[in-house]
Amino acid sequence: MTATPDLSTTFAPRGSRKDVEEGAALMPAFDANGLVTCVTTDALTGEVLMVAHMNAEALARTIATGEAWYWSRSRQELWHKGDTSGQIQTVVEMRVDCDQDAVWIKVRVGGDGGCCHTGRRSCFYRTIPLGEPTARLLPSDG
Amino acid sequence: MTATPDLSTTFAPRGSRKDVEEGAALMPAFDANGLVTCVTTDALTGEVLMVAHMNAEALARTIATGEAWYWSRSRQELWHKGDTSGQIQTVVEMRVDCDQDAVWIKVRVGGDGGCCHTGRRSCFYRTIPLGEPTARLLPSDG
Repeated sequence: MTATPDLSTTFAPRGSRKDVEEGAALMPAFDANGLVTCVTTDALTGEVLMVAHMNAEALARTIATGEAWYWSRSRQELWHKGDTSGQIQTVVEMRVDCDQDAVWIKVRVGGDGGCCHTGRRSCFYRTIPLGEPTARLLPSDG
Repeated sequence: MTATPDLSTTFAPRGSRKDVEEGAALMPAFDANGLVTCVTTDALTGEVLMVAHMNAEALARTIATGEAWYWSRSRQELWHKGDTSGQIQTVVEMRVDCDQDAVWIKVRVGGDGGCCHTGRRSCFYRTIPLGEPTARLLPSDG
């Protein structure tokens, strides 16, 4: 595991709304559990692969290393995606949203190219048809 | 405002892990605040437009109407996106993830095509360069 980046210099203290929305400093709005939401898309296809969470250390490590680190809420531990599966996610671009409580990373996936723990490429493998009174799930086209 | 869909028939009660991951019923895992995460992408470009939240009613209304409804955490109210701005989001496809705590909608945006409250098309208008000890934000290419 790489050394922990210095979180005190990685992030700026939370500023005014103008600073947050229009400034050039990263001042994340971590939630009550210390997390921001991360949307991970495939850099080539644009497909949404997963939605996960990052605490300050995961976010700082992702920025420092260019590989995706998350906070596993189920295991309550730092999670270097691909460490055991080989499905390392190399970040091609990282963005932050207007209020800085969500990030978007575009990644290239290593190993067998999978992302979901069920073995699929994306976690979003089922479609919900619209306009039906009882929602049901269908396999997505891919 | 359209009538509230019957939530008791829209969703199934939360089932086993196998039901959740491999079944054909929508059984969302709402968090402690009664919310699931929604990733909204542009159906044409694939760009991530916003990350927001849906409570049961917003999720059911989105499925029933084919337009995006959210739960505004800041205003603590149901939010039919575009009601005042004209930026109605027509859902082209809706997906759910493996553990059913996040949905992904691909939308066509009405009105002026904007999405972010700052006036921009996407909320993710800033890039975080990787590998720098102090994170900073740059305008994204678009």
